[in-house]
Amino acid sequence: MKEDQYSLLKEKIKSKDFNSVFVLVDENTDKHCLDVFINKSSIEEYNKIIIKAGEENKNIDTCIQIWKELNLQKADRKSLLINLGGGVLTDIGGFVASTYLRGIKFINVPTTLLGMVDAAHGGKTGIDFLNLKNQIGVFSMPIDVILDSTYLKTLSKEEYLNGYAEIFKHSFLSDSEEISFNSLLNLDFFKDVDFIIKKYSEVKNRIVKIDKYESDIRKVLNLGHTIGHALESYSHISNNIKTLKHGEAIIVGLITELYISAIQNNFPLITVDKLKEISSKYFEKINLSDDQLEQIFDLMIFDKKNNNGMVYFVLLDENGKPLTDQKVEKKVFVDAFDYYRN
Amino acid sequence: MKEDQYSLLKEKIKSKDFNSVFVLVDENTDKHCLDVFINKSSIEEYNKIIIKAGEENKNIDTCIQIWKELNLQKADRKSLLINLGGGVLTDIGGFVASTYLRGIKFINVPTTLLGMVDAAHGGKTGIDFLNLKNQIGVFSMPIDVILDSTYLKTLSKEEYLNGYAEIFKHSFLSDSEEISFNSLLNLDFFKDVDFIIKKYSEVKNRIVKIDKYESDIRKVLNLGHTIGHALESYSHISNNIKTLKHGEAIIVGLITELYISAIQNNFPLITVDKLKEISSKYFEKINLSDDQLEQIFDLMIFDKKNNNGMVYFVLLDENGKPLTDQKVEKKVFVDAFDYYRN
Repeated sequence: MKEDQYSLLKEKIKSKDFNSVFVLVDENTDKHCLDVFINKSSIEEYNKIIIKAGEENKNIDTCIQIWKELNLQKADRKSLLINLGGGVLTDIGGFVASTYLRGIKFINVPTTLLGMVDAAHGGKTGIDFLNLKNQIGVFSMPIDVILDSTYLKTLSKEEYLNGYAEIFKHSFLSDSEEISFNSLLNLDFFKDVDFIIKKYSEVKNRIVKIDKYESDIRKVLNLGHTIGHALESYSHISNNIKTLKHGEAIIVGLITELYISAIQNNFPLITVDKLKEISSKYFEKINLSDDQLEQIFDLMIFDKKNNNGMVYFVLLDENGKPLTDQKVEKKVFVDAFDYYRN
Repeated sequence: MKEDQYSLLKEKIKSKDFNSVFVLVDENTDKHCLDVFINKSSIEEYNKIIIKAGEENKNIDTCIQIWKELNLQKADRKSLLINLGGGVLTDIGGFVASTYLRGIKFINVPTTLLGMVDAAHGGKTGIDFLNLKNQIGVFSMPIDVILDSTYLKTLSKEEYLNGYAEIFKHSFLSDSEEISFNSLLNLDFFKDVDFIIKKYSEVKNRIVKIDKYESDIRKVLNLGHTIGHALESYSHISNNIKTLKHGEAIIVGLITELYISAIQNNFPLITVDKLKEISSKYFEKINLSDDQLEQIFDLMIFDKKNNNGMVYFVLLDENGKPLTDQKVEKKVFVDAFDYYRN
């Protein structure tokens, strides 16, 4: 990334577009990223708000904490909130900014690979509620997303790889040859990261631009997420499996939903096999019993992307084109997990 | 109102546009309005959510209660929330709907005069936070506002008159001769209510249509509200004066801000005198000490409509045209209250 990712921010601060600047961090980004950010952005005056890290804090209590601090530090309609962190932080920061005084401007500075290629883009903000992910939120676009792989340096390998499920997903949703599942397989997950961030986040942005409020084609971005989200929710409420990172759950969602695509829509099974194979190199296999599958299936019914008690999937057709609103019977869902488990 | 205000709702329910319908009521509208509404709208199946009435419940706890009930009763993205109540209820219901699953559709059915001419229109949703009005919220338009004066029949005279401050305000912001302060003075506040609701709510809707997010001309709707809001907030946190209804505070805001318009911008003082005179027939005078004025002035600095520590007013010029972003010195503010108090 040669261009100055911080130029828009610098320019707006120089022209005094904001009455005050707030930087939202969690304990980790406060320690590892804030100095770098302040240095690179040349911000001179700002207020820092620190929240606890982790999905378990992506809740209304954390919103209340941030709203309070904005209020106490006299944030007004012309204040800016900069969200410096991973997907949890940019989701919650975007929601808080979009609801404070009916909406102040915000910029996302993702510090994880997952944030850089997915979470920080597209304007989906929100929090979890009653153990359900993103139950409360709004669609609201950041005025800018700063993509700087410098922040990735302090990530653990596990945290780093967490972004790869969404990168795989985007590879299946791209129209170009340059950006595709096969070309991704030829890249180095670590050395080529700048190229991957730039190109694979564009896949999402192109789709979002056409359908900001997810009324139509944006639904394709839910590929892998119908099962993935339910599995992730399940891992948060169950004591029987370890709590999964988003990417760990989505990679399972992706494999199973592509398998269903192969069964129902003639998507090439060989591609699913390839995805399963490469995933196994980087992601631990999740062991799930039949009973657990039952519970995950029930959780899907509650997922916000489904309505009227039916479960609708995004699947791929024989040419790899996405199909939305696809019904899937429970038996096929179980078959897909048999494929994943074996 | 001859046309069927319920036609859009009936049509959408007939064509099964919604997976489920929720009706939000408070104790009062549950008792006095729900049966009428259900009867007139011909809704057959619905879920009722009851919240406590009153501005003191326009807070995040009530939102959490409603979000929970929506979730427990399996509201999904294609559910509809109908807000049946006054301004507090439509504000909070609009906010909850706009943030549940990143936004479900809602319809406002205002049951107070204030709601019918103002609060239910324009898409400003929200709740109070830390004693500050509408500190948290979003701009989000209802898909319909049903105006039916039948609901006004059970209102107390005091509650009824509460709508008149905004009707006066709209009369000053109208461009037409038919809808103006002078023509309003010739109408009967009670007998002509259907005409007044229809015509004076249109003044607001015309303005909102041009500037949905209050970036520009919509600010004129804050006429009377810079002082009025601060006075209302003050009455909620102080034990020294009675808690004011919105309209009671806004009428004081309107008189004082029009007086300031007369002093600073040659708005005809004779019109302010007329407003003061007619208001005194319907609204009790609020007694305020110099010390209390001091505190109200300080509260204005916090008001969301102001930024950078300055207080900006909407004032009227000599021809009655609104001027936004007008600075007002503290001395002029005090003078205006001297005028109001004498």
